[in-house]
Amino acid sequence: MTQLNGGVVPPVCTPLTPERELDVASLERLAAYLIEAGVHGLFVTGSTGEVAYLPDNVRRQALEVVAGVAAGQVPVLAGVIDTTTPRVIDQALAAKAAGADALVATAPFYAPTHPTEFPGHFRDIRAAVDLPLVAYDIPVSVGHKLPTEVVAELAADKTLAGLKDSSGDLDGLRAVLACVPAGFLCYSGSETNADLGLFSGAHGLVPGIGNVDPHGYVRLYEAAARQDWDTARAEQARLRRLFQLIYVGDGRIGRYSSAIGAFKEGLVLRGVIADATTSKPMIPLNDAERAAVRRHLDEAGLL
Amino acid sequence: MTQLNGGVVPPVCTPLTPERELDVASLERLAAYLIEAGVHGLFVTGSTGEVAYLPDNVRRQALEVVAGVAAGQVPVLAGVIDTTTPRVIDQALAAKAAGADALVATAPFYAPTHPTEFPGHFRDIRAAVDLPLVAYDIPVSVGHKLPTEVVAELAADKTLAGLKDSSGDLDGLRAVLACVPAGFLCYSGSETNADLGLFSGAHGLVPGIGNVDPHGYVRLYEAAARQDWDTARAEQARLRRLFQLIYVGDGRIGRYSSAIGAFKEGLVLRGVIADATTSKPMIPLNDAERAAVRRHLDEAGLL
Amino acid sequence: MTQLNGGVVPPVCTPLTPERELDVASLERLAAYLIEAGVHGLFVTGSTGEVAYLPDNVRRQALEVVAGVAAGQVPVLAGVIDTTTPRVIDQALAAKAAGADALVATAPFYAPTHPTEFPGHFRDIRAAVDLPLVAYDIPVSVGHKLPTEVVAELAADKTLAGLKDSSGDLDGLRAVLACVPAGFLCYSGSETNADLGLFSGAHGLVPGIGNVDPHGYVRLYEAAARQDWDTARAEQARLRRLFQLIYVGDGRIGRYSSAIGAFKEGLVLRGVIADATTSKPMIPLNDAERAAVRRHLDEAGLL
Amino acid sequence: MTQLNGGVVPPVCTPLTPERELDVASLERLAAYLIEAGVHGLFVTGSTGEVAYLPDNVRRQALEVVAGVAAGQVPVLAGVIDTTTPRVIDQALAAKAAGADALVATAPFYAPTHPTEFPGHFRDIRAAVDLPLVAYDIPVSVGHKLPTEVVAELAADKTLAGLKDSSGDLDGLRAVLACVPAGFLCYSGSETNADLGLFSGAHGLVPGIGNVDPHGYVRLYEAAARQDWDTARAEQARLRRLFQLIYVGDGRIGRYSSAIGAFKEGLVLRGVIADATTSKPMIPLNDAERAAVRRHLDEAGLL
Repeated sequence: MTQLNGGVVPPVCTPLTPERELDVASLERLAAYLIEAGVHGLFVTGSTGEVAYLPDNVRRQALEVVAGVAAGQVPVLAGVIDTTTPRVIDQALAAKAAGADALVATAPFYAPTHPTEFPGHFRDIRAAVDLPLVAYDIPVSVGHKLPTEVVAELAADKTLAGLKDSSGDLDGLRAVLACVPAGFLCYSGSETNADLGLFSGAHGLVPGIGNVDPHGYVRLYEAAARQDWDTARAEQARLRRLFQLIYVGDGRIGRYSSAIGAFKEGLVLRGVIADATTSKPMIPLNDAERAAVRRHLDEAGLL
Repeated sequence: MTQLNGGVVPPVCTPLTPERELDVASLERLAAYLIEAGVHGLFVTGSTGEVAYLPDNVRRQALEVVAGVAAGQVPVLAGVIDTTTPRVIDQALAAKAAGADALVATAPFYAPTHPTEFPGHFRDIRAAVDLPLVAYDIPVSVGHKLPTEVVAELAADKTLAGLKDSSGDLDGLRAVLACVPAGFLCYSGSETNADLGLFSGAHGLVPGIGNVDPHGYVRLYEAAARQDWDTARAEQARLRRLFQLIYVGDGRIGRYSSAIGAFKEGLVLRGVIADATTSKPMIPLNDAERAAVRRHLDEAGLL
Repeated sequence: MTQLNGGVVPPVCTPLTPERELDVASLERLAAYLIEAGVHGLFVTGSTGEVAYLPDNVRRQALEVVAGVAAGQVPVLAGVIDTTTPRVIDQALAAKAAGADALVATAPFYAPTHPTEFPGHFRDIRAAVDLPLVAYDIPVSVGHKLPTEVVAELAADKTLAGLKDSSGDLDGLRAVLACVPAGFLCYSGSETNADLGLFSGAHGLVPGIGNVDPHGYVRLYEAAARQDWDTARAEQARLRRLFQLIYVGDGRIGRYSSAIGAFKEGLVLRGVIADATTSKPMIPLNDAERAAVRRHLDEAGLL
Repeated sequence: MTQLNGGVVPPVCTPLTPERELDVASLERLAAYLIEAGVHGLFVTGSTGEVAYLPDNVRRQALEVVAGVAAGQVPVLAGVIDTTTPRVIDQALAAKAAGADALVATAPFYAPTHPTEFPGHFRDIRAAVDLPLVAYDIPVSVGHKLPTEVVAELAADKTLAGLKDSSGDLDGLRAVLACVPAGFLCYSGSETNADLGLFSGAHGLVPGIGNVDPHGYVRLYEAAARQDWDTARAEQARLRRLFQLIYVGDGRIGRYSSAIGAFKEGLVLRGVIADATTSKPMIPLNDAERAAVRRHLDEAGLL
């Protein structure tokens, strides 16, 4: 088992063939590309990895592929995304069997759940599967924010090893950082405020667009690590401009379809994966939108 | 295949043993009890059936049990609840194999999805599995309301056979009723405004508390069918009071835990199922709350 | 002081000149027109009356004009819309001086306020100004729903004489109706579910589009009063179609601008008021949208 | 007219007598205290100043008092908070007459307004009253966020001189900062992420708790101005702990009542104002809560 740590941990895209099957060769290239770029971990079957679209067997297969490439060089975190405790435990058992070094789980969703029920949820997952457990706070998907007190309680009793904060709420992230024990790992899921997260004490970054420009986030992280805030902020400013590519399809298709489509198109343009196909029911980018992605990469010096 | 129709179609509770395994005997008794009470269909693996908590194999088993009891007397609708198209199709294939007469699917959830992507979602499900498809509008779980225009478009081209409206939005229900073709079936998921739904032209009811008092909803439905609105409204008033039992645990535990716990406790008290255990991470009712459920049933003349 | 009652109580539009000054003659004609149509009261400075846009002196003047026309034939209710208790009391004192028979006040808005603070708000208003007080539940404007328990408490101790429910939540309306004392008046603010409100026991209606077609709502109300639900529902169906005129500007301008603009255009077309100008910053209807309003009125047989 | 600038611009509390009248002497002391602490401007009749609770004449009087103390030493910004354009213009005219150096206005509230209608709103205010205009983005009160594109458009054409961002959305603040012309002033309304705002390029701070500890925010601002981020962050960490005093009444009373009550109690304890009375319908702090405020100040070394 490779030790969980901080640093840049991109949520790995899941390349698909035009027939929407897992493109194993592309995924292998992507994992190798990210590791070579210096990332510190790989997060498989996260939102950027289209976890909510992948059947269980594809989730498992994607994880096996990435774990095989990682081969202990960097830890592999697996999103075990499902609605409630029993179903998440099933996902977690499968993820452990497929080679995950750590698990990332949200609070229950779809089933309306009260915060008093969150601690039991995470404790049961932790008890059922012996891997470090990271809480995934992603209100846009789950429908509610993970309260600071819940994270603090579960950090204190070692149920949780960390928090992936995709809430965009830096105030909440700082509140967590102020009360968790040493060794607890906080990851910011923000592509655009990664510097602010690190300035605030976060230990790691999980940027979706880190698939397309892992070197940029590694530079940003390293600058922050040596407290070189001018460099970190300048790198962030560049990455903020690049991140605008997620809006290429805005208005015509959903923002999420636009973002995932743009990440995959970017990876095709950079020669990392073979095809930009996304899962159903996402609508693919059209020619004009793909051209816009190319322009964004060009302006960012990535072509 | 039993023909889909209107009428009272309770979302069947899923009885569990104290060890949280499916209690087959109790589920058989519950299905038989509902059919004997005169209901017109059974909706398995809906929200009241704890679908979001049931592992895939338990969902399938519950459906097989109910389909076996129904044996063509009434249609069996199956909730095929999962995050996106490929995963819902997997659920739908399993449901068809387990004996469902019709499928009930929501729009995508967890994965942020744009309304322009909803039609493709439902069309792909319909194309993949040859069973009547009912759209399930449940914003409290899915995070957004199904737009009237989407339902109208999918009703017109026969993708959808019906709508289960658990949005509580009677205005929207009436808008749908005004524009769908004859034969399209609208079910109201409201326990407390069932009379208003029928008054507005809805064809069926899917009341969670119909597990506990199916006879009441059958009376309400039959009164409405003969346009006897005084009787329908009076029955509804009685059922509104009974429905207060869902709040027995309010404040201490989640409202959903309270409601599902109360329905199951009611079924135990009425001698239909053996045990009131609910899925994790729901917190069970305590003694005082169980006593309150008993009082509610007593006042409603159900003991 | 004219006694507050139920029935049809349109929220009176506030006609403006092209220079956006109060058009007194038009307002006099509108008030007279509504009374001749058989309405049971007039609600001045409500949302439809653009209260949020009218300077204090215009609010007062509009109320004086309508009270002058009403002259005791029907009660005149005044919206006393402001952010918090001291400011609402100022509005209420002015409204009483201008001839109001009853006051309609919301919970505090803009200033984040906790439900524990709502009772004091209404009690202080009631104590400061000796007129019947109606609570105005309009979450779309205020940002939160008035809890049933608060209304019940304030109805029981006679702080409130009634409730104007513009929440669209028929479930909540029925919960209030089930627990308030006799004589407490519930008004539904819904144009499209007025029949359901009356079926549920509401005492009155406050339909914005009742400015344009007061006769329709009077017929609906009278049919409901004699329990002739088929007639009430059919009238409602006709009014639902007419109500579509509020969407003429949808997409180009705000829905509220579109609705108020369409009501006023309708009143111009029916010869009641002189000009359809709305307050700033609302964007006026364009020619195509005005033509669409005409078509709606034509189809409804109102031209 | 004193020139608008950046720096620390506390939203000045409005001291009241126990009878809830303006306590002029206390307000004079407070304004003088803040200026002596080195603040760079004073923001009167903001949310912290209970603007939504103050009758128009009290708003005007408070502004006159503060403008009199400021006497050109620092600019005085006035919140001109009302629902829509005509009413805001009335507030703005009164504020100019009372001595304001700049105006702070929100988008319309209560009246549902579409973003296409925001530019006209701000342009009409700017055209009606010749003072620098700052847009106030406060979604918790207004119900929607001011879009970046609207701010950018109004900054480009000089309608707006600045933005007060109380949205808590640092991502949006950075998007604005990236596209507005030089000289446009961005103020962060965050007490707890003031350092992140300045790190991101904001020009000023408007911290409510800056009433109680103005010296702390002046130190934070000055550290940031010389790019001494370690000092700025450490000061922020101290102020974050102090800010916890706003929760003393949480659970019993509203959070806003708790916060305003705590700020005023803090000012009493520090000897600046005479009485901690807040406006109706806010519920006052009780003895235990007041004692908790004292403990917070004690721990922060402010007593």
